[in-house]
Amino acid sequence: MNLSQMNKEQLIGFKNETEALYNDFKAQGLCLNMSRGNPCKEQLDLSVDMLKVFDDGEFVTGSGIDVRNYGTLDGIPEAKTFFSEMVGVNEDEIIVFGNSSLNAMYFSIQVAYNKGIGGCKPWSSYDKVKFLCPVPGYDRHFKVTEYFGVEMINVPMTPDGPDMDMVEKLVSEDEAIKGIWCVPQYSNPEGVCYSDETVKRFAALKPAAKDFRIFWDNAYCIHHLTDSPKLILNILDEAKKNGNEDIVYIFGSTSKVTFPGAGVAVMGSSKKNIDELRKSLGISIIGYDKMNQLRHIKFFGTFKNMCEHMKKHMAIIAPKFQIVCESLEKEIAPLGIGSWTEPKGGYFISFNSLPGCAKRIVQLCADAGVTLTGAGATFPYGIDPEDKNIRLAPTFPPVEDLKKAAYLFTICVKLASAEKLLSEM
Amino acid sequence: MNLSQMNKEQLIGFKNETEALYNDFKAQGLCLNMSRGNPCKEQLDLSVDMLKVFDDGEFVTGSGIDVRNYGTLDGIPEAKTFFSEMVGVNEDEIIVFGNSSLNAMYFSIQVAYNKGIGGCKPWSSYDKVKFLCPVPGYDRHFKVTEYFGVEMINVPMTPDGPDMDMVEKLVSEDEAIKGIWCVPQYSNPEGVCYSDETVKRFAALKPAAKDFRIFWDNAYCIHHLTDSPKLILNILDEAKKNGNEDIVYIFGSTSKVTFPGAGVAVMGSSKKNIDELRKSLGISIIGYDKMNQLRHIKFFGTFKNMCEHMKKHMAIIAPKFQIVCESLEKEIAPLGIGSWTEPKGGYFISFNSLPGCAKRIVQLCADAGVTLTGAGATFPYGIDPEDKNIRLAPTFPPVEDLKKAAYLFTICVKLASAEKLLSEM
Repeated sequence: MNLSQMNKEQLIGFKNETEALYNDFKAQGLCLNMSRGNPCKEQLDLSVDMLKVFDDGEFVTGSGIDVRNYGTLDGIPEAKTFFSEMVGVNEDEIIVFGNSSLNAMYFSIQVAYNKGIGGCKPWSSYDKVKFLCPVPGYDRHFKVTEYFGVEMINVPMTPDGPDMDMVEKLVSEDEAIKGIWCVPQYSNPEGVCYSDETVKRFAALKPAAKDFRIFWDNAYCIHHLTDSPKLILNILDEAKKNGNEDIVYIFGSTSKVTFPGAGVAVMGSSKKNIDELRKSLGISIIGYDKMNQLRHIKFFGTFKNMCEHMKKHMAIIAPKFQIVCESLEKEIAPLGIGSWTEPKGGYFISFNSLPGCAKRIVQLCADAGVTLTGAGATFPYGIDPEDKNIRLAPTFPPVEDLKKAAYLFTICVKLASAEKLLSEM
Repeated sequence: MNLSQMNKEQLIGFKNETEALYNDFKAQGLCLNMSRGNPCKEQLDLSVDMLKVFDDGEFVTGSGIDVRNYGTLDGIPEAKTFFSEMVGVNEDEIIVFGNSSLNAMYFSIQVAYNKGIGGCKPWSSYDKVKFLCPVPGYDRHFKVTEYFGVEMINVPMTPDGPDMDMVEKLVSEDEAIKGIWCVPQYSNPEGVCYSDETVKRFAALKPAAKDFRIFWDNAYCIHHLTDSPKLILNILDEAKKNGNEDIVYIFGSTSKVTFPGAGVAVMGSSKKNIDELRKSLGISIIGYDKMNQLRHIKFFGTFKNMCEHMKKHMAIIAPKFQIVCESLEKEIAPLGIGSWTEPKGGYFISFNSLPGCAKRIVQLCADAGVTLTGAGATFPYGIDPEDKNIRLAPTFPPVEDLKKAAYLFTICVKLASAEKLLSEM
């Protein structure tokens, strides 16, 4: 029975029943974490053999670089070749960074902010700089722009990507809008894959600001949860067709391919943009960890092998997504108190509760020992206008723990929803 | 015979003789590099066993952290403990960064520039920000401050460190002076060890600017070239005695201990400063490469062992410093056309030619196939007012190559000096 159709008496009965279940859980003293998109131990174990690739004592690349020493600012040629296939760019359109694509994004914004890009004055010299933020989105993106004092404007997500009518209108009208955060393949948290039309419209954008950039965080480009994934269009290729290739910064990493703490991050863009950024990069560092770059190259050999490797990840985590979705389907669907995505890739399930319930649900879970991503985190400034979106990260906990956590989550959703509906009676 | 005492005829004869030697060298088609402080292959080989420390399959620290996964922003506790001994700070006074201390310096300046430090307004909001730069110094330091638009003021070095009378006077009078670059142990390039008095005077500075910081790049703290090294005083300890502990940022790394491309960089300061910087750090990255941190810990075990390891480096490179110094002693000393340091540690020999000769010497060397650090590089903006300082980096070339390069260098010094003296006749 749909919860909203219950009368007060039924609702009180439902709430008391749910509360009893909740208290039982609380008594178990759980300590589980579904807050971040962390791979689980079995996933980390998949890449342990990568640590043996230097047993051959070979540290010099085919291009003659001893990866142990200083130098080679923007990546060894072998890494550029390898990762350019992942990013979908040419070898002179890529920078190989350290272990963090977030750090590469932070850096590229810092450069725009302090030095200016594309021949324009620094963003810091404007009275106001704005970013478009498709919501729900990735909290760490929003934190970077907030740090640099950027005003963030929410743009609704659709099943095809951000609302492009709104994006086109805003960027063409307002010169203060300097960028947009995008996770185009399996968006964080909803798992949306941008449609071909969306990508084409991004590639054809004519922003008022000459230094407008699309921050295309393709974090999950090979992180599929099905055997027949839908791949998004290559945005740089599309932009080139419009003579618009300077409009996009593409980011990626192997954080969720090999090791989150010790992967390799990359950035792709037009040669002009890359040449420009490399100048600032050379001030900030002599070079990133080339040993780790070569470690990846030696371990995988080809991009195709890396994609094969991802199937082992899928085998481990796809069942975990299924556990959460089945639990929601069984416990929540009949009550009409929430909706959620069933992503075909990426790391998250996006859950929408009744308006005004997300914070309460996250709090109830926390009190019973299950940590979720903070409610509001998926919105700029941590403010979810409807207080309804919760990001679920099912990959990290072991299966048995995850079953408990998912069930507890449904109990908390029920309890918070009943409380809410009662409060409105 | 001292070159300056030669008459014109003698000088022309000397020049022609030297030119013939130079042309012989040029015909050999050498290709050697003494430009950067790169360890040589034998030094890199010393740490190769570090790559085997994970053969035991143990990735979880004693503190319970799986170093392969995300998280732990400022370093695993084991790395904080280990490196706090190297830096000379407590475990809550350290951040463990990635592979680059230069990047840590860039970051700390970027934070001061964009957000402000110590409760003061951002450096970017001042009309002018100035740094004191002991000269000769490290080119990459100067490039960072130049990048952020900082005006750099030359401060002469003495055998005891920077001219402290000048430092004290300037920082107490001028609120725009926000920092000073220091390499206190075996300064780059002169190899000067700051005297106890110098360190105490730094620790007791009373700058007009509340957000003044000493950028104490202790890059060579354990990089000795003798068995009985003189260690500098611990500046944070000294500063604490004056209630002045927020005045210093200390940097260090294992770039020249293990691998230049894949070492671990650290920063020490007061707990207050570290707590402040950690907030900005958390915006810019999720965490650095913890696997590499643990790799170092497992390989060395104790700080004492790491110091023992440095003796193996000394055995390889001390003879190289000797080769260059002997060559200078034999070829240049009798002619009175240059002076140089004989460092007890670090990576460089600082050579001063007759005024107005450094650029010409570097060019002559380059034309004969030996790359040196660019003349002027050891000064802010690349401008050596007297055009006389050249940084020699003897560690990288093999011994036989180094002998040739050192001899060629002396020929180029002779030639440039003769040209110069003739031009003034």
